[in-house]
Amino acid sequence: MGVQESRQGSLRGGGRAARRQARCRPALVQMPYISRRIPLTEVLSDEGLEIIENNAEIILEEIGMEFYDDPEALEIWRDAGADVQGVRVRLPRGLARSLIGSAPESFIQHARNPARNVQIGGDATVFAPVYGPPFVRDLDGGRRYATIEDFRNFVKLAYMTPSMHHSGGTVCEPVDIAVNKRHLDMVYSHIRYSDKPFMGSVTAPVRAADSVTLAKLLFGDEFVDNNCVLINLINANSPMVWDATMLGALKVYARAGQACVISPFILAGAMSPVTVAGTLAQLLAEAMSGMAFAQAVRPGAPVVFGTFASSISMQSGAPTFGTPEPTLVLFAAAQLARRLGVPFRSGGSLCGSKLPDAQAAYESAQTLLPGLLSGVNFMLHSAGWLEGGLVSSYEKFVMDGDQLGMMQALAGGVDLSVNGQAMDAVREVGPGNHYLGCAHTQANFQTAFYRSSIADNNSLEQWEEEGSQDAARRANTLYKKMLAEYQAPPLDPAIDEALTAFISQKKDSMPDALE
Amino acid sequence: MGVQESRQGSLRGGGRAARRQARCRPALVQMPYISRRIPLTEVLSDEGLEIIENNAEIILEEIGMEFYDDPEALEIWRDAGADVQGVRVRLPRGLARSLIGSAPESFIQHARNPARNVQIGGDATVFAPVYGPPFVRDLDGGRRYATIEDFRNFVKLAYMTPSMHHSGGTVCEPVDIAVNKRHLDMVYSHIRYSDKPFMGSVTAPVRAADSVTLAKLLFGDEFVDNNCVLINLINANSPMVWDATMLGALKVYARAGQACVISPFILAGAMSPVTVAGTLAQLLAEAMSGMAFAQAVRPGAPVVFGTFASSISMQSGAPTFGTPEPTLVLFAAAQLARRLGVPFRSGGSLCGSKLPDAQAAYESAQTLLPGLLSGVNFMLHSAGWLEGGLVSSYEKFVMDGDQLGMMQALAGGVDLSVNGQAMDAVREVGPGNHYLGCAHTQANFQTAFYRSSIADNNSLEQWEEEGSQDAARRANTLYKKMLAEYQAPPLDPAIDEALTAFISQKKDSMPDALE
Repeated sequence: MGVQESRQGSLRGGGRAARRQARCRPALVQMPYISRRIPLTEVLSDEGLEIIENNAEIILEEIGMEFYDDPEALEIWRDAGADVQGVRVRLPRGLARSLIGSAPESFIQHARNPARNVQIGGDATVFAPVYGPPFVRDLDGGRRYATIEDFRNFVKLAYMTPSMHHSGGTVCEPVDIAVNKRHLDMVYSHIRYSDKPFMGSVTAPVRAADSVTLAKLLFGDEFVDNNCVLINLINANSPMVWDATMLGALKVYARAGQACVISPFILAGAMSPVTVAGTLAQLLAEAMSGMAFAQAVRPGAPVVFGTFASSISMQSGAPTFGTPEPTLVLFAAAQLARRLGVPFRSGGSLCGSKLPDAQAAYESAQTLLPGLLSGVNFMLHSAGWLEGGLVSSYEKFVMDGDQLGMMQALAGGVDLSVNGQAMDAVREVGPGNHYLGCAHTQANFQTAFYRSSIADNNSLEQWEEEGSQDAARRANTLYKKMLAEYQAPPLDPAIDEALTAFISQKKDSMPDALE
Repeated sequence: MGVQESRQGSLRGGGRAARRQARCRPALVQMPYISRRIPLTEVLSDEGLEIIENNAEIILEEIGMEFYDDPEALEIWRDAGADVQGVRVRLPRGLARSLIGSAPESFIQHARNPARNVQIGGDATVFAPVYGPPFVRDLDGGRRYATIEDFRNFVKLAYMTPSMHHSGGTVCEPVDIAVNKRHLDMVYSHIRYSDKPFMGSVTAPVRAADSVTLAKLLFGDEFVDNNCVLINLINANSPMVWDATMLGALKVYARAGQACVISPFILAGAMSPVTVAGTLAQLLAEAMSGMAFAQAVRPGAPVVFGTFASSISMQSGAPTFGTPEPTLVLFAAAQLARRLGVPFRSGGSLCGSKLPDAQAAYESAQTLLPGLLSGVNFMLHSAGWLEGGLVSSYEKFVMDGDQLGMMQALAGGVDLSVNGQAMDAVREVGPGNHYLGCAHTQANFQTAFYRSSIADNNSLEQWEEEGSQDAARRANTLYKKMLAEYQAPPLDPAIDEALTAFISQKKDSMPDALE
């Protein structure tokens, strides 16, 4: 759908000027998070799942995980009943699963606009943008380091994409701002330029704490104490290692009652065995150890079973995407998460391509659709990812955004209402005629089929008249149109002032640093 | 995989010269048809399926189908118990399903090389190339009318694509040959340049008969009488019409015991209702009427429940591909076919794009993967389709062929053997190390992960050094390499002579005609 034009919407608040604008500009169409109405696709039998689960327990009990540079974490593990020797933590069979029992099966992440709240877990799927690239690319400027302006642009594009349910986190790394300060600008940008839910910083415990502080200025202390308003990406250092940075951020967020996505980040063949079943056992063990740790820190803290699974080229060592083995990992890991009773994060529009070309699209589609069908609850990287995650692509962002709309329609399943069955149309039309003008078509044509914002289905002649543009070129035009039409959602000026005051004070309190 | 290089293969037969060539050139890798080892994805409940089935029976009983210009067909229907008024044939509730009961649930289509025989039905999936385009396109020559040389090229590419299990039919229309003669060259090209199973002509009953004659020269009369060696595409003229051309071809093939794919060809919104459930009921009624007719002609004749479902743009009327509504039709129609107990044809690498770009790839992947997961048994158009089926694309053929290899690996499911579980690797490596050099990786790396023939996963620097090529450009290089390396499979010279003699005699017996 991309940018939908409609006269029916209305802006919330924002005074006379905003109302005047609302009268003369198209309103945004925003879709709620997906509530899946089609069955799940599963690749493993119960027997197969039990094999993987048993192997994960063996890994936890016999091999264990290492927790680096964090004596408090080791103490927490000792208190929880683990066998701690040096930095190696071994979990008696069943301990991790038992601890995870206190985690919620599903939770709401609140947005500053309650209409944008999302459910994480159950039959919900929430799409969030690409996370982490230091570079951006578009057809005009090529590949270059990302800046805070790029960051704001991707927040704006996510805001304007109807089936992008979440503003995400590090939509790109604003490398023009000092490492120890950029998290403030990132969190602020999500708040200021969008009203969708967003993610906090995890690059240092103090930056996680800053994220919580900013959230409290936005939502109020009590609301944040009692609700999830931040979801945060905690990566394992696979194989079987947790480092102090991630553990520190995890502890800040868990203690604040905010959600942690516990994600082994695995390039299979390098960071896990070269097989699907071996990778599954390891990532299950890693995810379980992280989620159990969060529960040991604060029972009931929302956690998400995360996986990022790619495989490497055995010829070059480079990560590959959209290939069948990581797809099998994705499907099976979703099953494992459901058996643990926790929400699941995986998928995305992943690709290794340098350009928004056919490779990028095949690979992205082959990750995105399995993500939807497997029952992913929180899908990071669902738009914009290019070049193995090194690049946030403007054109790919809007191309992927179009695909997200299609996934949302697909997840809605088959309408079996009387109108959906359309037997009156079949009776009216009969053999040898066409349906274009029949009453049922006239009554339904505006909403009948998903309308792509990118695909060109015109005749060859018309397409040639319009410049024989490929999809990437059309996406270039679309993303610029979206940015030109962007209007910020209203934000209480008092809150905005409090946020900017805190950020200024924090920035002034320390010199720029490189890490 | 594309063109796999291996020293392990060996050519079958072909004498000393062939053996010498086999020693110094890489052998082809050919995958057997897919035997799916992952569960099916289904979108409708039994209750939902019963609604569709009931509506199809209503269509057959109350509205009926029209059978044009074929008095014999009407006679066959009368004998079978239908209510025939003029060309309108109404089937009492249950008649079609009862007739279809004599059709096989699954059958083998034989190839001239028995190693290439395919199972149509059950848990098998067979990939076949694009069917029907009058144009071809590549990056060098652009879009142009197809010729017999193009036809031969696509047969050769299909032959060399490891996960292309079938040679297909009209891989493009050789418009440089008279309409009334080109079927002879097409069938001959499949026989001569490939040893995979192929399709017969359906553009006139006499051309269907010629296809059977050529098959008998190849396989022997008795073998053809007793086995399926041709599979043939019989399209309904939706909505609810069968024309004499298709009926005539159907009768020839059914009487010869050859397989008919009974395919409503539907652009939803124009040729069926603008809803998924309405389209499903109509296409089920159409497919049932065609399959039942084939059984009335010859009980036990192999038939396949076919669907080609796209939707039209409600803005322009143009067909669209890879969108969610036809995907839902595909998933649900596969379920309906299984309940009828017949094999199912649908899917493909469909797209509306004019170029092998991101649009083409997104749309193709969004049809191909659902095709695999839904349990499609015979997948026409699985490679090469471009521009809504008007164009056979050289580059897209090999890009899609790479995707077929991925689908085949995905369908293999998760290896849960001891080697697949890889617990020895996890034990050997342990926390904080990498798996690249461990014994398990060394033992498995050659076959561990699917290796794409098209994807570039190199560093940006290396990719730039190699010319910053997009996927289509790399595919251009690959298809030419494949054609350059192509070697025809050996064919008995006596059979070849008989085939060419029959073709010459047929061609000489009539003047060129335009239809």
